[in-house]
Amino acid sequence: MSSGTHHRAAGWVDGTAPLLHERLGRMPPLAFAESCLRGVGQVMFMNNPLTGLLVLLAAWTFDPWLGFGGTVGVAVSTLVALLMGFDRDAVHAGLFGFNGVLCGLALATFLAPPWDGVSTVWIVVVSAGSSLAMAALAALFAVWGVPPFTLAFNISVLLCLITGLNVARGQIGELVAPAAPTVAGPRVSTVLRESAEAAGSTDALAVLNAVFRGIGQLFFVNSILGGVIVLVGIAVCSRIAVLFALAGSIIGMLVGMGMGASGVAIYNGLWGFNSYDACLAIAGVFYVLSWRSALLGLACAAYTALLFGAISSFLSPWGLPAMTLPFCFGVLTFVMLRDAAPQRFTWVPPGEITTPEEHRRRARQELAT
Amino acid sequence: MSSGTHHRAAGWVDGTAPLLHERLGRMPPLAFAESCLRGVGQVMFMNNPLTGLLVLLAAWTFDPWLGFGGTVGVAVSTLVALLMGFDRDAVHAGLFGFNGVLCGLALATFLAPPWDGVSTVWIVVVSAGSSLAMAALAALFAVWGVPPFTLAFNISVLLCLITGLNVARGQIGELVAPAAPTVAGPRVSTVLRESAEAAGSTDALAVLNAVFRGIGQLFFVNSILGGVIVLVGIAVCSRIAVLFALAGSIIGMLVGMGMGASGVAIYNGLWGFNSYDACLAIAGVFYVLSWRSALLGLACAAYTALLFGAISSFLSPWGLPAMTLPFCFGVLTFVMLRDAAPQRFTWVPPGEITTPEEHRRRARQELAT
Amino acid sequence: MSSGTHHRAAGWVDGTAPLLHERLGRMPPLAFAESCLRGVGQVMFMNNPLTGLLVLLAAWTFDPWLGFGGTVGVAVSTLVALLMGFDRDAVHAGLFGFNGVLCGLALATFLAPPWDGVSTVWIVVVSAGSSLAMAALAALFAVWGVPPFTLAFNISVLLCLITGLNVARGQIGELVAPAAPTVAGPRVSTVLRESAEAAGSTDALAVLNAVFRGIGQLFFVNSILGGVIVLVGIAVCSRIAVLFALAGSIIGMLVGMGMGASGVAIYNGLWGFNSYDACLAIAGVFYVLSWRSALLGLACAAYTALLFGAISSFLSPWGLPAMTLPFCFGVLTFVMLRDAAPQRFTWVPPGEITTPEEHRRRARQELAT
Repeated sequence: MSSGTHHRAAGWVDGTAPLLHERLGRMPPLAFAESCLRGVGQVMFMNNPLTGLLVLLAAWTFDPWLGFGGTVGVAVSTLVALLMGFDRDAVHAGLFGFNGVLCGLALATFLAPPWDGVSTVWIVVVSAGSSLAMAALAALFAVWGVPPFTLAFNISVLLCLITGLNVARGQIGELVAPAAPTVAGPRVSTVLRESAEAAGSTDALAVLNAVFRGIGQLFFVNSILGGVIVLVGIAVCSRIAVLFALAGSIIGMLVGMGMGASGVAIYNGLWGFNSYDACLAIAGVFYVLSWRSALLGLACAAYTALLFGAISSFLSPWGLPAMTLPFCFGVLTFVMLRDAAPQRFTWVPPGEITTPEEHRRRARQELAT
Repeated sequence: MSSGTHHRAAGWVDGTAPLLHERLGRMPPLAFAESCLRGVGQVMFMNNPLTGLLVLLAAWTFDPWLGFGGTVGVAVSTLVALLMGFDRDAVHAGLFGFNGVLCGLALATFLAPPWDGVSTVWIVVVSAGSSLAMAALAALFAVWGVPPFTLAFNISVLLCLITGLNVARGQIGELVAPAAPTVAGPRVSTVLRESAEAAGSTDALAVLNAVFRGIGQLFFVNSILGGVIVLVGIAVCSRIAVLFALAGSIIGMLVGMGMGASGVAIYNGLWGFNSYDACLAIAGVFYVLSWRSALLGLACAAYTALLFGAISSFLSPWGLPAMTLPFCFGVLTFVMLRDAAPQRFTWVPPGEITTPEEHRRRARQELAT
Repeated sequence: MSSGTHHRAAGWVDGTAPLLHERLGRMPPLAFAESCLRGVGQVMFMNNPLTGLLVLLAAWTFDPWLGFGGTVGVAVSTLVALLMGFDRDAVHAGLFGFNGVLCGLALATFLAPPWDGVSTVWIVVVSAGSSLAMAALAALFAVWGVPPFTLAFNISVLLCLITGLNVARGQIGELVAPAAPTVAGPRVSTVLRESAEAAGSTDALAVLNAVFRGIGQLFFVNSILGGVIVLVGIAVCSRIAVLFALAGSIIGMLVGMGMGASGVAIYNGLWGFNSYDACLAIAGVFYVLSWRSALLGLACAAYTALLFGAISSFLSPWGLPAMTLPFCFGVLTFVMLRDAAPQRFTWVPPGEITTPEEHRRRARQELAT
C-alpha cells in the first residue's frame, strides 16, 4: 500500500506510472477515476491505474454483474474517503479504494439475485462503511507502523453476510451454507475437479486450473483467462511481483494437496489467492528482495495456506467464506518479524513502498553511498 | 467517561453536579453512594448522580430483582476498585461502576430463578471481576488514548453465561437459547409486535414502543415508562444528549426495519439501545457538537445497528445476546476516526469530558481567545 | 520468561543455574540441548534446564509418544529460531522453545494414530510455525511491555486442529469431538471420577488426583506421579513457585467444584493446569512476592478457572480443547493491572525476571540502599 509521494520509478505506464499521475492530477474527474483504478491495483500492492483497469476488465468479462459490483464498490469507498476529508495523497494512491472494490466483488458473488436493487444497496452501504473501518484500523495499526491490509474489507463483508442470515432482506445466496463442524477428514474427496458432480483427475490441466484460477479468485474471477489478465495487470507494474504471485499460488495449491483438502476447492483456486498476495507482499514489497526475503515470501505463502484451512473451518457454522482473512493474518505475522531479525531482512516502511524493482534499486544506491 | 477533575459546568443538579460532588466528597458513606450513582450514569457518559438514581428507579420499578441486581453490581464493582487501590478520582467519577451495574442488570435478566442465592453469588463475582477487567483494558487501550467503553462488562457477562452452559450451577434462564445458524432470511416475520404469539401491526404505537423501549433496554428495562425515566435522567445532565439518544434509538429501529429484522426484536427495543448510546457519544461527548459531528453521530448509530445484527447472529450458536458489544465496536471505530480527519471534527480528550453543553462552551471560548 | 542476562541467583543446579549456563555455553551441541531444556522449564517461567529435564522425564514415562512429541517440538522450534537469526540470548533462555514443546505435546495427544509419519510431520510443521508466531507476537505485545505468554502455542495448535477437521490428512483423534452447544447445566454429573463409565465418589483420593493431575496436565501428563515429577522440577528452580503451583491447582479445582463442573474433567486435572501456572506467574514472577501479590495470584487462579470454563464452552462447536488460552488471558489481565495500582504491587520487568526468591532478595536490597 504505497503512498503517493514516491514516484521516481518508471514513466507513463510502468511502475507506479508517475507521469500519468502528474498529468491526470490536474483534471478532477479523471483524477478520481485514476484514484479508483489505483485502488483496484492496491489489492496486490500495485499502485498503477493500468493494473486496476486490467483487473476490472477480468471481472467484467467473467461476469458483468461482478464487474459492476467491483466498480460501484471502489467508486463509493473512494468517494466516501474524499467526502470525509481523509488524507488526499492516500486517497489518490488508492488506499481507500482497495477495500471497497473487494467489498463490491464479494457481495456481487455472495448475494443473490444479481442485478438487484437491494443487493446494490448492500454493495453501496458496505463499501462506504469499509472506508470508515479502514481509517479507524489504520489509526489502530499505526502503533506498530504496519498497515491494516484488507481487514476493513473482511470485517465489513463478513458482518454484512452474517447479519443477512437473520433478516428478511439479507439476500444471502447459495454459496453461504451454514453447517455444523464435523471430523470430515477421512471422507474428503481430494481429486481435483471443477464441481462435486464433475468427474476429475489430478493432471496437468487440473493443476493449471488451480494455479491460474487462484490468481483470479483474489477478485472472485474463477477462470484461467481471468487469472492471466490479472497477471498481465501485475506485470505492467512489476515483473518481480508476477513471479512471486505465480510461486505463491503454486505453494498454496501444494499445501492444500499435501494436507488432503477438497479437490473441488483446490481446482477452483481457493487455496491459491490468499497465498499469492501474501507471497509477493513479503518477497519484494515489505522487504527488499533478496534470496532470504524470497524464501520468507514462500514460507509466508505456505503459512497463509494453513491459515486458509483453519479460518474456513472456523467460519463453517455460519457458512461464511474465509475471504482474505488468511492473507491479512499471514502477512501481519511476517511483517511483524521485522524486529526479530533486522539484520537479515531489509524493511521497507509502508510510506516508502513503490515497486519491488524500485526497492532493490534504492537499496543498491544506499549501499553504494 | 469523564474524570472527576473538570467540574466547571452547572451547579447542584445540572451538568456534572460539581457542588454536590464537593459537599458529599467530605462524607465517606455518602461519597461512596455518590460514586455508585455516577457509575450508573456513566453507562451513557452522564457523570451525574441524579441520572444514576433515575436509572436505578426505572430498573426497580420495572422489576425489583432487576433493580437489586444492578444495585449490587455497581456497589460491588466500585468497592473492589477502592480495595484494589485504583485511582480515586476515577472511582469517584463512576468509571469503575458502569461495567458493574450492567453486569448486575444483565445477570438478573439472563440467570434464573430470580431472588436466588446462587444467582446473587454470580452477580457479586462477575461484577467484582469486571472491575479488574476494566483496569486491565484501560491500560491496554491507553496506547491509543481511548477508553475501553463497556468491553469489561461484555467480556465478563458473556464469559459467565457461556460457562454456565456446561456447569450444574450455571443458572441459565430461558432467554439463552443456543441454536445452529441458518439462512432464516425470507422466513423472518417483520411485523412489529411484543412477542412471537402476539398479534401486531406496524403502527405509530408500535414505533413508539420500539423507540422508548430501546432507550430503556440499555439497562434491560423493557417498557415505555422505563425509557421515559431514563430520558429524564439524561436530561438532568445534558439536553443535547437527550436529543441524540432519541435520534439514535430511532435510527437503530429504522436500520432494523430497513433490513427486515424480526419485528418482535424491533418492538422490544433491541435495535435501539446500542445505537442511541453510540449516537450521543459521538455527536457531543467525544467530539464537540457541530453539524458535522451530529451527522457523524447519526452515521455511528446506523453503523452500530449493523453491528448489532452481525454480533447477534455470530453469537447464536451459544444462544448468547449481543449485549453492548455493538456499541463498543461502533463507538471505537468512530473515535478512531479522530486522526483521519482532524480538521473536520474537534476531539475531546477522555480526561476532559464533562457534558456536550460544556464542550461547546469551552470550544467557543478557545476560538474567542 | 526470563532473559539470559540476570544470573546472580544460585549455582550449578539451583535457581537459573548460571554456572551450568556459563560452562555449557562454550560447547555448541550441549548449549543447544540446554536451550531446549530451559525452553521446557519456561512454560512455568522456570529458566532452569534441570526443570525441563524432569518435565520431559514425566512425559516420556507417562507415554513415550508424548515424550517424543514434546522433544521434537522443543528441538524444532529452538532450531528454527536459531536459523531465523532471532536474538541469541532469548533463544538460549528458552524463549523460543516453550511454545514448541507444548505444540509437540498437544499434537501427540490430540492427533492419531501415535508413532505415525504424518502426525510427526504435523508436529514438526506446527512447532516450526510457533517460533515465527512467537517472534511476531512478541513484537506486537512489546507496545505494552508484556510478553505474549503461550499465545503462539495456542494459536498454532488450534489452527492445526481446526484445519484438520476438513482435510483428509488431518489425523484428528477421538479427543476432538465437535458438538453443538446446549444448556447442559442441570444434567452435568459433578461426582469426581476418572471417566464417564467409572464409578466415583468425591473423597480425599479423588481430590488428590484432581490437584496432582492438574499439575501434570499442563504438559498433557495425566497422572499423579507425573504431577509430582513436575513439582520436583519446579522445586529445583524455586520453592516459592512450588507453593503457588499447588495452591493454584487447588483453587482451579475448587472453582470447578463450586460451579458444578463435570466431575470427570475435574478429576483429570483439567480445571487445575491453567490456574496453577497463572497463580505462580502473578504471585512471585511478574510481581515481587508480598502478601498482597500472593492474594493477587490466588485471585488470578480463580479468574483463570472461570476463563477455562468459558473458553472450553466457546470452542465446543469445533470440539477444540481450551489449551492454555485461559492461562494467557488470565495472566494478561492481571499483569496489565500493573499500572492501575503501582503502589500496591512491585512489577518485575520481563527482562529482569529470574526466580521469585531472587526477586525478593533484589527488592530487599533496593529498600536497604
